[in-house]
Amino acid sequence: MKQHLKDQDVGFSEWYNDLILKSQLADYAPIKGCMVIRPYGYAIWENIQNYLDKLIKERGAKNAYFPLFIPMHYLQKEKEHVKGFSPQLAVVTIGGGEELSEKLAVRPTSETIMYEMYQKWYESWRDFPVRINQWCNIVRWEKRTYLFLRTSEFLWQEGHSAHLTHQESLDEVIWAIKTYEKTYNDLLAVYGIVGVKSDSEKFAGGNKTYTFESLMPSGKSLQSCTSHDLGQNFSKAWNWTIQDQNRNKVYPWQNSWGFSTRSIGGLIMAHSDNNGLVLPPNVSPIQIIIIPIPGQPEAEKFARSIYDQIKSEFRTEIDLVDDESAGFKFNKWELKGVPIRLEIGQKEASSRELTLYRRDSGQKIAIKYTELHSQLKKILSDIQKNLFVRHKKYTQDHTFTVDNYDEFKQIMNSSKGFILAHWCENPECEANIKKETTATTRCLPLDSKEAIGKCIYCGAPSRHRWLFAQSY
Amino acid sequence: MKQHLKDQDVGFSEWYNDLILKSQLADYAPIKGCMVIRPYGYAIWENIQNYLDKLIKERGAKNAYFPLFIPMHYLQKEKEHVKGFSPQLAVVTIGGGEELSEKLAVRPTSETIMYEMYQKWYESWRDFPVRINQWCNIVRWEKRTYLFLRTSEFLWQEGHSAHLTHQESLDEVIWAIKTYEKTYNDLLAVYGIVGVKSDSEKFAGGNKTYTFESLMPSGKSLQSCTSHDLGQNFSKAWNWTIQDQNRNKVYPWQNSWGFSTRSIGGLIMAHSDNNGLVLPPNVSPIQIIIIPIPGQPEAEKFARSIYDQIKSEFRTEIDLVDDESAGFKFNKWELKGVPIRLEIGQKEASSRELTLYRRDSGQKIAIKYTELHSQLKKILSDIQKNLFVRHKKYTQDHTFTVDNYDEFKQIMNSSKGFILAHWCENPECEANIKKETTATTRCLPLDSKEAIGKCIYCGAPSRHRWLFAQSY
Repeated sequence: MKQHLKDQDVGFSEWYNDLILKSQLADYAPIKGCMVIRPYGYAIWENIQNYLDKLIKERGAKNAYFPLFIPMHYLQKEKEHVKGFSPQLAVVTIGGGEELSEKLAVRPTSETIMYEMYQKWYESWRDFPVRINQWCNIVRWEKRTYLFLRTSEFLWQEGHSAHLTHQESLDEVIWAIKTYEKTYNDLLAVYGIVGVKSDSEKFAGGNKTYTFESLMPSGKSLQSCTSHDLGQNFSKAWNWTIQDQNRNKVYPWQNSWGFSTRSIGGLIMAHSDNNGLVLPPNVSPIQIIIIPIPGQPEAEKFARSIYDQIKSEFRTEIDLVDDESAGFKFNKWELKGVPIRLEIGQKEASSRELTLYRRDSGQKIAIKYTELHSQLKKILSDIQKNLFVRHKKYTQDHTFTVDNYDEFKQIMNSSKGFILAHWCENPECEANIKKETTATTRCLPLDSKEAIGKCIYCGAPSRHRWLFAQSY
Repeated sequence: MKQHLKDQDVGFSEWYNDLILKSQLADYAPIKGCMVIRPYGYAIWENIQNYLDKLIKERGAKNAYFPLFIPMHYLQKEKEHVKGFSPQLAVVTIGGGEELSEKLAVRPTSETIMYEMYQKWYESWRDFPVRINQWCNIVRWEKRTYLFLRTSEFLWQEGHSAHLTHQESLDEVIWAIKTYEKTYNDLLAVYGIVGVKSDSEKFAGGNKTYTFESLMPSGKSLQSCTSHDLGQNFSKAWNWTIQDQNRNKVYPWQNSWGFSTRSIGGLIMAHSDNNGLVLPPNVSPIQIIIIPIPGQPEAEKFARSIYDQIKSEFRTEIDLVDDESAGFKFNKWELKGVPIRLEIGQKEASSRELTLYRRDSGQKIAIKYTELHSQLKKILSDIQKNLFVRHKKYTQDHTFTVDNYDEFKQIMNSSKGFILAHWCENPECEANIKKETTATTRCLPLDSKEAIGKCIYCGAPSRHRWLFAQSY
């Protein structure tokens, strides 16, 4: 294992890419824009899936599977939708050795193919609400790979609900983004801001997009997942009407929401350091690594007994590789971001006192063997909390309330971060700010209070502070 | 819900397709050869995944994710491999609005893209054995859809291991097919024969293919899953050498093994009847359906209390739809194949004796409320066993040992089934038998004993009875 990780300060992106490769989360694939998710990275995705799938099912949504291929004319049915996704399509033109009469898009998202079936399956208010979720691969063509953050193919879940009323559909949209926020906060220990996208940043074909934006140590924001109020745009495009309780034909109100492997990129950036990954215990594939000091038989015996004792409760591994030094092993598991390391030598074996190393704080803690179980539980929980608090504090320390465009520019030229600033909601101002600072509106935070002010760009009246940042 | 299911005797395929559509396991997609797996069908797949994924992980394999797209020149590296898969490829020629300089195949299987990465990642015996598994979608172009059995896109897991010795690799191949057999037997209650494929039926690019063949009530065999000894064919094609313990450069021995959504087709056919699906409890999305007789408040109250009492241990649902008759509901859940139905009326509510209906046998059984829990457990287990025993008996009753080609033809013209017959292993005889009877060699059963005989077609000496059948 090559140890010399690039330094964060040399270049955040270089550090990020190097970290992912060296910790073996993922690798570049030999196909433009594509990556391979290696077992260590995929184990993180499995933990995310387990957590989120449970919440989605509790809501009443059921999993299903729709085709990878979408006939081009489906995409064209909703005009904004096709405009938004066309530039990024991968297109199948040959099947079974023959030129296809209609080209097939590899799904860039599944609204069109799913709603084609909805319209066939659901005819009555009795079938409502409709809640279907799908875990699958998605393709949106990219020329350059940014591991986990921007790849031609990625994995996600996409939920697609349909309701009798707009209000019910809006409730679902909010439920989805709040569920995602919970997943980021509680599982990934990542803090962020929930809000509504401006029109220029919303989903192609939707009415409103809700987002969870999290600030990365680079000072840039990650649009971490989204939830869309689709109004009746798609049901009208498909001419999908159903009979309501009063026997009227009505167009259903729809919404969709997605959470992807991009989240792993956010997870990595939010917590990790120059020694490698730092993973929150709740999502870490390995929570505890036990390292008996090589060449000490008593230590190994004691280490094995501890392993047997805790492995069923905690995700634990023991490192028994025989030709690596203790120091080499410490570095190796530090790179992998394992939250707790138990170092076990002759001394620990005879004193029955253990040395525990916390990956998040670098602390070494002596714990009694008799209290092992309760201490591990407590410390894992502390680490989880600490990482979230730390990321929340970082975000708050880098969130600036700004009323002056020069100051805005100066921040975007130096430390970067989140800026709360008045904007008149004119797309021209938004576009100019983007051109001049590369910062965009990330969202109007859900908890934003109305406050009279002046657009930071043009001085026109504004009623809200929007969240601005440069973004991934 | 439309109830009138087609009859098995009218036509087995018609019954099968109709059953899948009406029980809402799946639907035809508006793309040639493709299907949609609806929530009820997908829940079965999730149960299969949970069961099989655990066994795969216990073996030490780890899940990962490799790209959907495979550059055409990778497929061409192994000559037999490309020959086998070329006719079925879906090909992407346009990405991001531009004609691609190299066309990309949508993966028909992932050997080539995975081994490209293996060759890059693994250089030493210390990394061995390599065991990686992937759950994903696969595309092999089909003109006509045969729901679950033959579709342009399907879901599967593909395991890809690499070993230092051929023996170790062979052990893995056998482990895989035995694990699949266990999954069929214990989870899906489907009996079958494990054996080795003839050269004409083996995996393109492999040395030997092991198969699990199960006999369907149509008299045809389903190749239900396979496991391949790839020898060193791929490591040589990729020029992938590693350093062994003696510092010699050696080519790894590889194998791959896959289990797909096709299994759901086998599950459906093996057990179901003219009233609908019959699902084994271990894999059924719903194990117990509680139906209070509509319009009887006492019954409903009692039913609800039973539901609350058992739902955490058994996958249970309660049918409280208010404008369907009891009879309609019975049919509805019979169609869905739920193993146990609890019918609860006024009588049951006051007597505290319940009427239990077994979907597999059609029996009605009176059980005491006080014994509810233990009875449900016992009966679910009985149903699971009964279905397996029944399918095993069906298979044995339709397995014929034949030494005369006329008899062989006569069986294939009438009842069909498995035939054990001597074959000289000359591909010409195999091809002629296929042409004349549409039966093919399914496998040489693993437990087949050497027995001197004469080829049923040409009379040449033969040392084994092969398993023949018409197949899906």
